[in-house]
Amino acid sequence: MPTSLSQPSVKKNSCVVVGLDPHFKLIPETIKQKFSGSQKQVLEYASRVILEFNIQVIDLIAPHVSMVKPQIAFYELYGWWGIWAYTETIQYAKRRGLIVIGDVKRSDVPSTAEAYADAHIGKVSINHGVEAPFDADAITVNPYLGTDSLLPFIRTAQKYKKGIFVLVKTSNPDSGEFQDILCGEKKLHEIIAEKTHVWGKDFIGKQGYSAVGAVVGATFSHEISILRKIMPTAYFLVPGYGAQGATAKDIKYCFNPDGLGAIINASRSILYAYTVSPWTDKYGTSSWKNATEEAIVKMNKEIRNMLEQ
Amino acid sequence: MPTSLSQPSVKKNSCVVVGLDPHFKLIPETIKQKFSGSQKQVLEYASRVILEFNIQVIDLIAPHVSMVKPQIAFYELYGWWGIWAYTETIQYAKRRGLIVIGDVKRSDVPSTAEAYADAHIGKVSINHGVEAPFDADAITVNPYLGTDSLLPFIRTAQKYKKGIFVLVKTSNPDSGEFQDILCGEKKLHEIIAEKTHVWGKDFIGKQGYSAVGAVVGATFSHEISILRKIMPTAYFLVPGYGAQGATAKDIKYCFNPDGLGAIINASRSILYAYTVSPWTDKYGTSSWKNATEEAIVKMNKEIRNMLEQ
Repeated sequence: MPTSLSQPSVKKNSCVVVGLDPHFKLIPETIKQKFSGSQKQVLEYASRVILEFNIQVIDLIAPHVSMVKPQIAFYELYGWWGIWAYTETIQYAKRRGLIVIGDVKRSDVPSTAEAYADAHIGKVSINHGVEAPFDADAITVNPYLGTDSLLPFIRTAQKYKKGIFVLVKTSNPDSGEFQDILCGEKKLHEIIAEKTHVWGKDFIGKQGYSAVGAVVGATFSHEISILRKIMPTAYFLVPGYGAQGATAKDIKYCFNPDGLGAIINASRSILYAYTVSPWTDKYGTSSWKNATEEAIVKMNKEIRNMLEQ
Repeated sequence: MPTSLSQPSVKKNSCVVVGLDPHFKLIPETIKQKFSGSQKQVLEYASRVILEFNIQVIDLIAPHVSMVKPQIAFYELYGWWGIWAYTETIQYAKRRGLIVIGDVKRSDVPSTAEAYADAHIGKVSINHGVEAPFDADAITVNPYLGTDSLLPFIRTAQKYKKGIFVLVKTSNPDSGEFQDILCGEKKLHEIIAEKTHVWGKDFIGKQGYSAVGAVVGATFSHEISILRKIMPTAYFLVPGYGAQGATAKDIKYCFNPDGLGAIINASRSILYAYTVSPWTDKYGTSSWKNATEEAIVKMNKEIRNMLEQ
C-alpha cells in the first residue's frame, strides 16, 4: 500500500473503503435531471451523471473515510466516456484527500502487464512529455498468470510509492471452485497467499505493512484466520460487507491484533442507502444524502465497536 | 466464437489474427509527423498517432487475414484518450470486414462481470437509448474466480452471437507456476480446460466450434496436444508466434484434423516487421508497409504449408 495509507485511516479512525460503483438506475433522479438536455448521446450523458453523483458522494463521505474504490467495470460500461468519468473521479477524490484504489483486476503476460501498471499506477513518457494516465494509489490484480505477470505491477508500485492487492480469495459464491482446489495438502488460494507474502516481503512501509496486499472476501470467515497467519504483513482488501451479506463479526479476523491490516469495502449499501432498509422508510429519494451519510457513520461505528470488544 | 468466424477464415485461407498492440516508439516517424502540431496533450497526441497507425495497418492486412486482436492494455496506457483510439480501431476494423477479438482478459464477481460483458461484447440501455460501447466480436476472460464469474460473459456472448476465449494455458515463462500445479492427478489448467469444454458445449455453431474458446500459448507444444483432446470443439486462440519464439511446427497440434480450430496470433513480428530481420535490411522505415505486408504473407504461407504436410 502507499506509505501514506495508514495515516489518514488512523486520523479518521476508519478502515472503510467506499466502492464507487455507479449503477445508473439507482442514481437519484435529482442528479439525472441536471443533464436532461444532453440525452441524445447515451454514453456521454450517463458518464456525466455518474461523475456528478460521484462528486456529491465523495463530498459526503470524505469527512468519514480515507479511501474510495472505483470499480472500473461500471465505467467501461459507458465506453471511453465512462473511462473519462473514471479518470475525473480519481482526480476529484485525490483532491479531496482520499486514497484511491482502482478496482481493475488486471493481469497479462509481462510486457502487457507493464503497460497496465504504467497506465493505472505509473506514468507514460511520449517524446518529452510525461503523464500519469489514471494515477490511482493502488489497484487490484489477478494472479492466475504467475509471478512474472505480477512483477511489473510490483516494480511500478515500488517506483511510485503505490500499492497492489492480489486476488487471493474472492467473495463470489463459486470462488472455491478453483481457489479452494486441493494441490497436495494446500488449497490453491493458500499457495497464492504464500506467494503474495513473498512478493511483498521486501516492500514493508513504516506501519509494518507491505505494498503488496491481498483481496480476501469477507464471506468466508474460516479462511480469513488462516490467511491472516500466512500473510501477516499484507493489507487485506475485504469486499462483501453490507449488500453481499457479511457483518462486522465476519470480518473480525481480517485484522491483526494491532487493529490494523484490513480495509473493509462497502459499495451499494452506502451509495444507494436510500433504497434499502432502514433508510428507505426514513428518507425519500430527495434526502438520499442523509441516508448515505448515516449509513457510512453506522458502518464505521459497527467496525469500531467490533474492534474494541 | 461468432458464428461468422470460420467463414472469412476459410475465404481468405488464413487462421492468423494480427495483434494490434501499439508500441509508440516503434510506430514509423512518418505517421507521427502528421500530428506534430498537437504534441502538448501527450495522451491525445499518442492516441491519434496510434489510431492512424492502426488504420494504415488494417488497410494493409485486410486482404490477407480475417481477424485482428487489439490488446487493450496498450490503449489504457494513454488513459481515456487511449480507450477512444481502441473504440475507433474496433469500429474501423469491423467496417473493413474484419472480426475483432478484444484482448481484455477481464474477470470479476458476477454482477461486475455482467458490466464488463455488456461493455465489451454486449449493450447498455440508458432510459430509451441503447448503445454497444465497444462491440468487439469476442474477448478474452480470466477463469480464476470460477463458473459464476464467467456465466455473464457466456450469456452475453450467446445473446449477441459473440464469443469468449478463456485463459487456459498462457504463453509467459511463469505460466506454469499456478496453471501447471498438480491438483490430485490433473494440472490446474487441465481442470480449467475441462470446465471450458463444459461451459461451451451448448453453444456450438455451424462449423462445429463453440462460442467458448480457449487461450493456449504456442510456447508449450506438449500441453497443446492434451488440451486439443480435452476441448475438441473449442477454438484455440494461440499467442506466442513470432516475437515470443514459437514456429509453425510448434502450433501444429493446436489444429483439429479438419485444419480448423486454431487462431494464431502474431503482433510485433507483423506490425513492426520493418524493425526486424530480414525486413530491416531490405526496407527502411519509410517502406514499413512493404515489410508488414511481406511478413503477413509469409506467416500465412508458413502455416498453410505446415497444415498441408
